[in-house]
Amino acid sequence: MSGLGWIEPLRPQIIGAIDRQIETVAAQLRTVNRFGNDVAKRLSEYCARGKLIRGALVVAGASLDGESRGDDLGAVEPRIEPPRPVVDLAAAVELVQAFLLIHDDIMDQDALRRGKPAIHEQFRHAMADEGGRDPAHYGSSQAISAGDVAMLLAVNVVAGVDLHETVRLRVIDLLTREIAMVGIAQMADVHFGHSPHEPTEREILSVYRFKTGRYTFSLPLMIGAIAAGVAEPAISQLSVLGEQLGIVFQMKDDEIGLYADQEESGKPAGSDIAENKRTLLRLWLFERAGDGERARLQQIFGRTPVDPDDLSYVRDRAVALGVRAQSAARVDTITQDCERQIDALPDTGMRGKQLLRTISAYNRSRTA
Amino acid sequence: MSGLGWIEPLRPQIIGAIDRQIETVAAQLRTVNRFGNDVAKRLSEYCARGKLIRGALVVAGASLDGESRGDDLGAVEPRIEPPRPVVDLAAAVELVQAFLLIHDDIMDQDALRRGKPAIHEQFRHAMADEGGRDPAHYGSSQAISAGDVAMLLAVNVVAGVDLHETVRLRVIDLLTREIAMVGIAQMADVHFGHSPHEPTEREILSVYRFKTGRYTFSLPLMIGAIAAGVAEPAISQLSVLGEQLGIVFQMKDDEIGLYADQEESGKPAGSDIAENKRTLLRLWLFERAGDGERARLQQIFGRTPVDPDDLSYVRDRAVALGVRAQSAARVDTITQDCERQIDALPDTGMRGKQLLRTISAYNRSRTA
Repeated sequence: MSGLGWIEPLRPQIIGAIDRQIETVAAQLRTVNRFGNDVAKRLSEYCARGKLIRGALVVAGASLDGESRGDDLGAVEPRIEPPRPVVDLAAAVELVQAFLLIHDDIMDQDALRRGKPAIHEQFRHAMADEGGRDPAHYGSSQAISAGDVAMLLAVNVVAGVDLHETVRLRVIDLLTREIAMVGIAQMADVHFGHSPHEPTEREILSVYRFKTGRYTFSLPLMIGAIAAGVAEPAISQLSVLGEQLGIVFQMKDDEIGLYADQEESGKPAGSDIAENKRTLLRLWLFERAGDGERARLQQIFGRTPVDPDDLSYVRDRAVALGVRAQSAARVDTITQDCERQIDALPDTGMRGKQLLRTISAYNRSRTA
Repeated sequence: MSGLGWIEPLRPQIIGAIDRQIETVAAQLRTVNRFGNDVAKRLSEYCARGKLIRGALVVAGASLDGESRGDDLGAVEPRIEPPRPVVDLAAAVELVQAFLLIHDDIMDQDALRRGKPAIHEQFRHAMADEGGRDPAHYGSSQAISAGDVAMLLAVNVVAGVDLHETVRLRVIDLLTREIAMVGIAQMADVHFGHSPHEPTEREILSVYRFKTGRYTFSLPLMIGAIAAGVAEPAISQLSVLGEQLGIVFQMKDDEIGLYADQEESGKPAGSDIAENKRTLLRLWLFERAGDGERARLQQIFGRTPVDPDDLSYVRDRAVALGVRAQSAARVDTITQDCERQIDALPDTGMRGKQLLRTISAYNRSRTA
């Protein structure tokens, strides 16, 4: 049981909406030149390979409208039948995710995404095959534009969704503000990766809050709830809840990044160490390490590829120094807080709350 | 007389609106981390150094509302007093321009913009000063995010502008579609710069049409006209007119790029040759050149810096082979067509038409 089973029945609907929306605009993009069709195809294929968590969370947010349809109240993973505008908003959120991933992969110089070459790598290969100059720079340049197009499509979808104009404008206002904040958080994250200065716990948590919490959880839940007519104060409470859910999600992501092997996580074992990713685990490890340990850790982090002995050393130290336990304790505390917040959500009905509990439990216990 | 004198009195209003809008969102961006303030300041300073042509064209479009205020009907460069929502839309369009320039400068590896280091260069310098790793990649990465933030701010401004909700959504729909098309046109332009294949006249004209025509002229004029309540068929006619105005503007830009010295154009003399920019002038020059001439031209284009003798050779050949005359004749034909289109615009009043004629005349005769 993945804990994400409730997403499965939504997949075809969300992917169908993404393709329908891309196709609507692609008809116009094709009038410009052949890249109109090229980008439409790449985006469609790219979105279809995603986990669609954020799109599904839009649907989850919309299920907080207080209507208990009662069909599956007893099920661990409730089935939900979202109306068309909610699915269209889910599609918009997944196009935003494509935009952010495409740009992030340029910045992080990640060659693989969703099991295939990243978009900038796809374009790099195409220019190399064509025998043109500087395929790497060509790849990054085209991926910047492809990401831009994905973002513009996302806003275009919201502008045309079948909801009251006031609701559409409210979603556009929220979406553009929140994604601007993600951009600002991303800049701090990029800065961590280049600067010789070590980020503080507060700085790391701020990135978790905006890049994972508000973006991955608060925003989709709020968009879905707004679309479904959920009123204040529930919307503001979802905003806070999403941040907490996201911090747990990210902390588990960091744990998976350290302890999972490639088969479980889909990434090479120890890739966070090779990238010298500024995680809370890493910060606490350096804080608790003795001088000799710290010197060795400093040599290990940021070296590619990670030596298997070095990986074992980091894993062992994280356990021996109590860092893994510290992380687990923090995850437990925040999860309990999330559950209290879910219980306290006003006027949202049993069905939506049950789904939020499923999501919170998944975040805490996921292993991949 | 620059021909852009009518923009001067609008500058303080448009710049004021940009700063007011940036400040509104910056208050929220500052809660994320120090890059919130950093980006707000850079964008404000960057926008203030622009020519504000596109913002001013929003105002020009709004002046097509058919109301002849009669105050300055005889003036060559009419004064216009735009209402606040129109100025806010002008600010949004200038934020879009900032977004596109920031991303374009990364792709074109241009180090200077508006007389100062490009945004990616500003961040590169900052990281070099900090002693961090790979300042060049850091600079590009931060500029990708800064550009993204500018685009998101632009849409956010439109979502909140003091106009009827239907109008706001129509502008957002138009803006996101058109800028997506600019992104697709930009991809072809980037492709020209890397591929060993020569673009055709049709391919070059398509980039002129979408990157300069529709983006720089049609879109701002249409946004202004929509905001002012101008009805169809005038909006569709502005769409076509803008493309023609933009093609003239771009062809004169290419001429300036070949014949102007640095003092006139603000760019190093012959920089289009050094960049091997795929202009119509360049295409026609290669088409009309004899074999010996073509061989020499092939050696000259794309070599940095351009040798003064080589620059003279290209300039002389363009005249001797009739390419400069061909370009001037094309500019004249399109300009005459523009004037006919302006005369035929329905229900737009004398004031707005007079302004469009001023713009068309400027595009044709500008020397910098």
